[in-house]
Amino acid sequence: MSNPSLLILPGDGIGPEVMAEVRRIIDWYGDKRGLTFDVSEDLVGGAAYDKHGTPLHDDTMAKAQEVDAVLLGAVGGPKYDVLDFSVKPERGLLRLRKEMDLYANLRPAQCFDALADFSSLKKDVVAGLDIMIVRELTSGIYFGEPRGIIEEGNERVGINTQRYTESEIDRVARSAFELAMRRGKKVCSMEKANVMESGILWREVVTEVGKEYPEVELSHMYADAGAMQLCRWPKQFDVIVTDNLFGDLLSDAAAMLTGSLGMLPSASLGAPMANGRPKALYEPVHGSAPDIAGQGKANPIACVLSFAMALRYSFDQGAEAERLEKAIETVLADGVRTADLLGEEGATPVSTSGMGDAILAAL
Amino acid sequence: MSNPSLLILPGDGIGPEVMAEVRRIIDWYGDKRGLTFDVSEDLVGGAAYDKHGTPLHDDTMAKAQEVDAVLLGAVGGPKYDVLDFSVKPERGLLRLRKEMDLYANLRPAQCFDALADFSSLKKDVVAGLDIMIVRELTSGIYFGEPRGIIEEGNERVGINTQRYTESEIDRVARSAFELAMRRGKKVCSMEKANVMESGILWREVVTEVGKEYPEVELSHMYADAGAMQLCRWPKQFDVIVTDNLFGDLLSDAAAMLTGSLGMLPSASLGAPMANGRPKALYEPVHGSAPDIAGQGKANPIACVLSFAMALRYSFDQGAEAERLEKAIETVLADGVRTADLLGEEGATPVSTSGMGDAILAAL
Ligand SMILES: CC(C)[C@H](C(=O)O)[C@@H](O)C(=O)O
Ligand SMILES: CC(C)[C@H](C(=O)O)[C@@H](O)C(=O)O
Repeated sequence: MSNPSLLILPGDGIGPEVMAEVRRIIDWYGDKRGLTFDVSEDLVGGAAYDKHGTPLHDDTMAKAQEVDAVLLGAVGGPKYDVLDFSVKPERGLLRLRKEMDLYANLRPAQCFDALADFSSLKKDVVAGLDIMIVRELTSGIYFGEPRGIIEEGNERVGINTQRYTESEIDRVARSAFELAMRRGKKVCSMEKANVMESGILWREVVTEVGKEYPEVELSHMYADAGAMQLCRWPKQFDVIVTDNLFGDLLSDAAAMLTGSLGMLPSASLGAPMANGRPKALYEPVHGSAPDIAGQGKANPIACVLSFAMALRYSFDQGAEAERLEKAIETVLADGVRTADLLGEEGATPVSTSGMGDAILAAL
Repeated sequence: MSNPSLLILPGDGIGPEVMAEVRRIIDWYGDKRGLTFDVSEDLVGGAAYDKHGTPLHDDTMAKAQEVDAVLLGAVGGPKYDVLDFSVKPERGLLRLRKEMDLYANLRPAQCFDALADFSSLKKDVVAGLDIMIVRELTSGIYFGEPRGIIEEGNERVGINTQRYTESEIDRVARSAFELAMRRGKKVCSMEKANVMESGILWREVVTEVGKEYPEVELSHMYADAGAMQLCRWPKQFDVIVTDNLFGDLLSDAAAMLTGSLGMLPSASLGAPMANGRPKALYEPVHGSAPDIAGQGKANPIACVLSFAMALRYSFDQGAEAERLEKAIETVLADGVRTADLLGEEGATPVSTSGMGDAILAAL
């Protein structure tokens, strides 16, 4: 049997730096654990635009469809702010999500014990926090038609369309319930059914799917109340399922609340391929951080943990994923800190590659 | 000259209880400060549905259009969850906002010194916080057409439309800049211009309006980053301006972060009427809290402060508004607490009307 294949898209800003550390860890798995991947690398975002005039070349798109998993760093930067909407770095990422049909975006919001003090929230509110936000990623207002800026009367009008079909809601709800079965058996669904008809349909379909999971406790919350409750007492949640736009805001807020933003990975999963593996893209929750790019200051942990998610969800290597997660916990408990995590007494400051060294040593 | 007119719509849940305390304070202003209002009262939300089969009777709508200001308690409750979308309590409120064309929703997120410990955030993150969120309230995905649940192929599709015209963005941006001129002279505008064309237009128009206010420092943030930054370091903001849906989530999150949710008022303002006063509706940010309704437990302060906003924005009585706000600060500093604020040592627990007594005594 051939090795599983990985397409690496480092992207922009700190993407290439953090990805370099992930590659060392991938190599370690080949050398030490007999887990060898066929790794290829390509461009996405601003880097792709600079070379090809498009944030995602068709050849790269085709490769992404063929591999077992894609690992992405980050896209975007001020240099590209002037570009037309259609070729902005973000369009590369959105095209990958849409054409690979990665409908379930898994965003764990976890607070690492060693870092609970970094949260703006009180320690007892976040210590031990471990929730999973499942965000719909291929539909809703991100992709609905009609869209654009049109002339009407004497003025321009900006238009976007929120659009959800029953089957789109059904499949992402299933992902959430399946995850809940392996976790705390609670799902909270968030929408604005009091204001939006798409939210009414969302609530109905999630409720229907929930009947197939009688062991899972299902609740519903308006998204504004959800934002409040995440800020007040996030530990009340286990799995949250929500649409593309609400998921964007709520998962970012949740990530920030943990105090571990530079630490959080994500998985975007689609339907199973012929080999049984889901279409999959893994990426850190943080952005391209252009202000610190190229200085060896970036924290590679979110990207490394994204590879751990790949081990778990694409390659059925749950034990190896845990090995990597444990190694990171050890490194953090030892006080090893990139610049974003400095501030405590007795911490050992390291560069991006220094963090990579420490993780490899702990492995 | 006739007295200024006030239409009071207590609504559902704790609405009538908190409004009863406001009426005592309105009476006090008539007796002691020579500020007499012509007060009328009517139904909205579930209460209106119970009597008329609609959450807002046409006669009530007509009255609201005529008075100088509307004061609303809260709408909604589990009893009405089964109702059809078109007659849900919320539709009454949304109709008022839309037909009175109350495009600028002012939501102060303030942390009361005496209550900083109630926040889930660390004290230094919220103490002294005082930001103003200006939310567009009459357009966007709340009202855009087409909307509804339609059949397509073999399944249903939920549709809502985000729609903003240049003039809709222009007028709410102006409100934000005007407020900033009387505050910290900073405006941060939030949208998702990286994903939504309506966000691109939003950013463009706000930038244009900003040129007329050279003294005000204007910045732009994607709404997901905005949610993050509100959780991380809310004091970086002065005035935030954003659309209807983002404003719904962001202002609720901000309100919760202050730890003073039961304390926060809001003003919804439209264009000036013939008498120069803006069309206006004032309401607490909190909801109808059906779980504690009718028990004398509700905190009336948010509703009282909404009347203070009415004094300031509708009746040009800034000094009288401050008198009322000061009285509330005194009461809080004295340790007088409704049930939602209990927990500290040495606090004096009071009922809803007990809080009303204390505020009147402090006045
Ligand atoms: C970069 C941007 C297009 C993207 C989004 O809005 O989905 C990002 O914010 C995210 O959450 O992955
Ligand atoms: C009650 C509901 C319709 C309303 C809204 O979504 O605007 C509420 O959440 C608010 O923020 O005033």
